[in-house]
Amino acid sequence: MLVNTRVVRIEWGDCDPAGIVYYPRYFAMFDACTSALIERALGMTKHDYLRAYDFAGHPLVNARSRFIIPTRFGDDVSIETTVTALRRSSFDLIHRLHKNGALAVEGFETRVWVQGDATNGTMKSAPIPPEVIERLSIG
Amino acid sequence: MLVNTRVVRIEWGDCDPAGIVYYPRYFAMFDACTSALIERALGMTKHDYLRAYDFAGHPLVNARSRFIIPTRFGDDVSIETTVTALRRSSFDLIHRLHKNGALAVEGFETRVWVQGDATNGTMKSAPIPPEVIERLSIG
Amino acid sequence: MLVNTRVVRIEWGDCDPAGIVYYPRYFAMFDACTSALIERALGMTKHDYLRAYDFAGHPLVNARSRFIIPTRFGDDVSIETTVTALRRSSFDLIHRLHKNGALAVEGFETRVWVQGDATNGTMKSAPIPPEVIERLSIG
Amino acid sequence: MLVNTRVVRIEWGDCDPAGIVYYPRYFAMFDACTSALIERALGMTKHDYLRAYDFAGHPLVNARSRFIIPTRFGDDVSIETTVTALRRSSFDLIHRLHKNGALAVEGFETRVWVQGDATNGTMKSAPIPPEVIERLSIG
Repeated sequence: MLVNTRVVRIEWGDCDPAGIVYYPRYFAMFDACTSALIERALGMTKHDYLRAYDFAGHPLVNARSRFIIPTRFGDDVSIETTVTALRRSSFDLIHRLHKNGALAVEGFETRVWVQGDATNGTMKSAPIPPEVIERLSIG
Repeated sequence: MLVNTRVVRIEWGDCDPAGIVYYPRYFAMFDACTSALIERALGMTKHDYLRAYDFAGHPLVNARSRFIIPTRFGDDVSIETTVTALRRSSFDLIHRLHKNGALAVEGFETRVWVQGDATNGTMKSAPIPPEVIERLSIG
Repeated sequence: MLVNTRVVRIEWGDCDPAGIVYYPRYFAMFDACTSALIERALGMTKHDYLRAYDFAGHPLVNARSRFIIPTRFGDDVSIETTVTALRRSSFDLIHRLHKNGALAVEGFETRVWVQGDATNGTMKSAPIPPEVIERLSIG
Repeated sequence: MLVNTRVVRIEWGDCDPAGIVYYPRYFAMFDACTSALIERALGMTKHDYLRAYDFAGHPLVNARSRFIIPTRFGDDVSIETTVTALRRSSFDLIHRLHKNGALAVEGFETRVWVQGDATNGTMKSAPIPPEVIERLSIG
């Protein structure tokens, strides 16, 4: 599977009064990493790939994280993202966040490929295009 | 176990370009609901209970959510929070977010009661005080 | 002019490692207060008033804040919001955030009533409907 | 004066249902840019410069932004940050965010160099160290 790695600087504003990352921010980082992986696979920004493949996005049905080592502002962490399963209209991802070489946070996501409009109830799952599956599968 | 329910208005700023809640915001809502449950149990704000029980907080070791029905800005949702397990120095919680009576999101957390300082590596788990266990256990 | 007041609990997740509100969060609070004022004026949620008046929103052209007294998690603050000027297609607002009766933060906004789509360059200012002007002007 | 420039990718999660940046996120970007400027001037992370100069931070007393051109997810913007005034214990900064070469957002900040603890009322302004003034002043 295709792997994408991002280096992220933990900012003061990502942290809470304990001085460490406010954990919902990890999910925001992981969401951006998922988009970055698909952007790399398809060679265009999310803005453009939503249009090119005429779909409404890849919202989550499940998100899970394990928090192993705290990170704090000033830390540069690396986040390695890859797909772990590709099904007809859904897929799984894993994000591994390392700090100084040690695994600090792991994130797991199950996402659905959807069409329609989430705000009026017409959003529904759609088959992931074969080209997308192929490009995410490249080793 | 003690149960606390909060009504939360989904704001424009909680939502993404799909018009629905940007999912890391659910984790922020759940974090506030956990604090609200403990505040209710102990009869003081988080600011005060951190001092009264001389500890550094209750960071997460695991967070998981299931996203069942999307919510959008203008929705008033209710979040029901309760403890599902209490161990020596860690505890589990569940958050059930309902929209118009239907379960829309479920959140599960495992948290640790800690002392010390997360930013210099001295943070470590500590026993949950008996009084806290007792007050969270009240039916 | 119509005035709307909201009581807001400052949450742990609103605060930075200094233990006080991370100031971009004030702007998020003020944005929600602007929507709440218009919702009260028009008797419907933002989701519904965008449809009822067929417009794309009221984005900012200017935002300014003065930070006078810090607030921290556990504080209950009140935010009083009102319109200070109404022009053909733009309007000014002020938000006064009080903590224990003292003015802690002041926010000033200039917003434009817009139609079209901000993402493809077709967004442009539009006249504020007379009914909206009238309802925001009520004393 | 020293100038620092950052390239920032606008993420899906930075945007609101209009598809453009939710404006409090600009203030978060600017806050990170201020830290980055000082980090560059002093040659260490914010975590380390707070310790090295034994102070509590540089909170804002005034923040102002002008929003000229909307930005949307997928945009790569550049933010140029510099100090515009240095006083005994406070300083002014400007952030100029460009998109495709055009000025899209301008941010203005007045910040105070502080010591003490914001959460217990002991925070007060302190003189900016001469070395910091000197390093921020380098052309």
